[in-house]
Amino acid sequence: MLNPYSPLFTDLYQLTMMQSYRQVGLDQREACFDLFFRRGPFGGGYAVWAGINEALDYLANAKFLPEEIAYLHSLKLFTDDFLAYLKDFHFKGDIYAMPEGTIVFPFEPLLRIQGPLAECQLVETALLNLVNFQTLIATKAARICREAGKDNVLEFGLRRAQGRDGGLHASRAAYLGGCKATSNIEAGQLFDLPVCGTHSHAWVMAHEDELTAFRHYVAIYPHNSVLLVDTYDTLKSGVPHAITVGREMQAQGLNLMGIRLDSGDLAYLSRQARQMLDASGLTQTKIVVSGDLDEWIVRDLRQQGACIDSYGIGTKLVTGQDDPSLTGVYKLSAIRAPDQSWQLCHKIAEGGRKSTLPGVKQVWRLANEHKSMVGDVIELEQSPLDQVKDFMATHPFNNYQKIHYQNIKSCRPLLQKMMAQGEILITPTNIHTCRANIQAQLDSLDPTFTRLLNPHIYKVSLGPQLAAVTHKMRDKHLAVTTLPGKI
Amino acid sequence: MLNPYSPLFTDLYQLTMMQSYRQVGLDQREACFDLFFRRGPFGGGYAVWAGINEALDYLANAKFLPEEIAYLHSLKLFTDDFLAYLKDFHFKGDIYAMPEGTIVFPFEPLLRIQGPLAECQLVETALLNLVNFQTLIATKAARICREAGKDNVLEFGLRRAQGRDGGLHASRAAYLGGCKATSNIEAGQLFDLPVCGTHSHAWVMAHEDELTAFRHYVAIYPHNSVLLVDTYDTLKSGVPHAITVGREMQAQGLNLMGIRLDSGDLAYLSRQARQMLDASGLTQTKIVVSGDLDEWIVRDLRQQGACIDSYGIGTKLVTGQDDPSLTGVYKLSAIRAPDQSWQLCHKIAEGGRKSTLPGVKQVWRLANEHKSMVGDVIELEQSPLDQVKDFMATHPFNNYQKIHYQNIKSCRPLLQKMMAQGEILITPTNIHTCRANIQAQLDSLDPTFTRLLNPHIYKVSLGPQLAAVTHKMRDKHLAVTTLPGKI
Repeated sequence: MLNPYSPLFTDLYQLTMMQSYRQVGLDQREACFDLFFRRGPFGGGYAVWAGINEALDYLANAKFLPEEIAYLHSLKLFTDDFLAYLKDFHFKGDIYAMPEGTIVFPFEPLLRIQGPLAECQLVETALLNLVNFQTLIATKAARICREAGKDNVLEFGLRRAQGRDGGLHASRAAYLGGCKATSNIEAGQLFDLPVCGTHSHAWVMAHEDELTAFRHYVAIYPHNSVLLVDTYDTLKSGVPHAITVGREMQAQGLNLMGIRLDSGDLAYLSRQARQMLDASGLTQTKIVVSGDLDEWIVRDLRQQGACIDSYGIGTKLVTGQDDPSLTGVYKLSAIRAPDQSWQLCHKIAEGGRKSTLPGVKQVWRLANEHKSMVGDVIELEQSPLDQVKDFMATHPFNNYQKIHYQNIKSCRPLLQKMMAQGEILITPTNIHTCRANIQAQLDSLDPTFTRLLNPHIYKVSLGPQLAAVTHKMRDKHLAVTTLPGKI
Repeated sequence: MLNPYSPLFTDLYQLTMMQSYRQVGLDQREACFDLFFRRGPFGGGYAVWAGINEALDYLANAKFLPEEIAYLHSLKLFTDDFLAYLKDFHFKGDIYAMPEGTIVFPFEPLLRIQGPLAECQLVETALLNLVNFQTLIATKAARICREAGKDNVLEFGLRRAQGRDGGLHASRAAYLGGCKATSNIEAGQLFDLPVCGTHSHAWVMAHEDELTAFRHYVAIYPHNSVLLVDTYDTLKSGVPHAITVGREMQAQGLNLMGIRLDSGDLAYLSRQARQMLDASGLTQTKIVVSGDLDEWIVRDLRQQGACIDSYGIGTKLVTGQDDPSLTGVYKLSAIRAPDQSWQLCHKIAEGGRKSTLPGVKQVWRLANEHKSMVGDVIELEQSPLDQVKDFMATHPFNNYQKIHYQNIKSCRPLLQKMMAQGEILITPTNIHTCRANIQAQLDSLDPTFTRLLNPHIYKVSLGPQLAAVTHKMRDKHLAVTTLPGKI
């Protein structure tokens, strides 16, 4: 049985580094790491931050079992002293993070962790794993749901998800991002999600004929049957049989809830089916479609005037098919010197966009009187931005690109203290409220920021103090390392 | 806490169908379903079958907890009688499947399940979820490892995997497919996999300077340090500092195991680094590279003569980035009539490649004296192919494409009975043997079948009896439904 709070949910190198930090006397030094991503997933401009509550739960409870210590001992990499230290390990750091459901952008810290260097190092992998995936899928769902229209998307992905847990958390994230319900009943139970479903081809094939199969199904579920019409031939067999059944139901004062198209040309078939249903007086019967859909196909179907009421979306939603990983990273930004001052850290690799930002930072979301989201600014925590009404912000990697912010009406900090010395400080917002908040934030953004292709880039800049210190550190590094040499 | 054997690991419609089967008296009828895929993942010609042992374990133990029944009751979809039946549910069917690690091809049944219709229906989703993902990743790993060369790939994907379980099972599948080791220590413990790792940028940034960081690391791990050299500047800082440390080690009779390049142009940097290492006498020091690699980039690097000893591969391996789901399906192929004869079932949707094959079937792998894998033939189980030495096989969807098989030296059935009435009959092959078997099978295939791009199509055909019955059923259906009408 899996230990749900196993600290082995990590990479080996975190443990070898921990042991090393102890040997060189750095393990108890307070460190500050930022978690962020560099590129919006799916070619989009934003992401829907998700998974933080589960990450907090993991951090608060992570603890080694004796058999896990015994396993580590068997690797012959660790000293007895280090294993004894692990036996008593529990996470004692602080977490500052954005609340689940915040709409977030590249380069801004979504989570800041402060605590003993060795402990922060150990939990890197689990934190990234937990938030990367849920953020990815909540974002994918938001993209799809905005194309499909409110409450028109059902999530059907479990069978094609990346493992059972990949399915469970995808269903949760998909609901957060705007899906109406999931077919994943375990996710329904664990996360209080609405569940839904139709029937499969097997139901039809197990009967002597399609008409009998349909009659049997609606007799059992007279109020919520959606009949799958493509087992043999959609327009020549499935839809006519569904109509026969629908008319029989009408005669009893009932209404056939829907039909589902699962193959063929959905634009063509949905228009034909709509016509056939309407011509038979079944104007209330809805058309659900399924089969390898994503935001692009949904948009295309709508542009063609397909007659579709709901979209059942599986594979491409729960795996984030066209971009199946959020490339979140976790980088050291400061470490306390023995004199208790913060010694700032950054990484220069490749210059430009793979560099990291030094210091203990806060992220501020600016609003003016018309809009709640004008831009985000990252600044050193010691210099709160709500104290200034007029300042110059700088591009994270290009010192020449600046914005002059004036007349900012409100400026709120996005990183909230959620954990202190390993104890959770917050009560998570329930998932239904969180889902509604996400839609409200997306609605308040100019549509140029949420469009699918080549979105307008939402500005994330550095505040004056952070820009100055970052510039100085990069400059100093250049001065030290720019030598004559090969390309 | 998650019930690892929860039958709620399914789609809602399986439960609504089960209830319906009971109401129409079909639930106890013996059914036969096939699990197969229609398209090799990643544009390749084959897949590495994985996940079956875990699927068997799940089937043997699946059982509802009282709180799960209570949850189903709360949905107001199910009768008390049905919930009482679920309370006592355990799977009582038979499983015929290919052994884990079999090299498999589109359209052939990889697993055949026979049992009460309602039970087979319930477990569809879990079976697909468990085998789809592991088969996908084992296949991706095999593709990468064949390009990288034997034992040259390390799997580093946990932080970017689709959930914790997505990471765990990806690590297992990646090892099966040929990876040498994983960084995922929990996977190492649970599945007996070799574990490995280097150090991260944080180790360097937490020190005053890079040289000190390197010196400290090799002092702690003198025999297995791989130094990450790109924190500040690979060629101007990282490699020179690694060389300094490597020469200090040589003076003590030690050898610096390796350096890791994690950004920049790996072809260029690896050649430069190799030259610099060699010129300093560090010819034994290996070069490991990482950073968004996959089989195509590995091939490209090798074609450019990059000086790389090992590849650390994460995101694109553990998510199957360019094709993150195996599209396995599970289709009813036969159901016992009340007179105990098998009534054959098939699905016609879209004609052609989305049709299914009727009947209770076996898959035969043919060999001649030179090659162990000449082609696979699917035939009705009642007509064993090892009794005939000369027969005509037919393409699954094109009755005009036929192959005359003659002088077949051996013909072995691939589907083995692994479960009888819910009890597991087999002891799984251990993972290390299984991994070696996979490499042996791939080595025995003509390289035209395993090449990355536009592979030669390995022939999977229908035996004479299955071809006849399939043809007859499709023909009959056409005769019934071809009516004058719209396109």
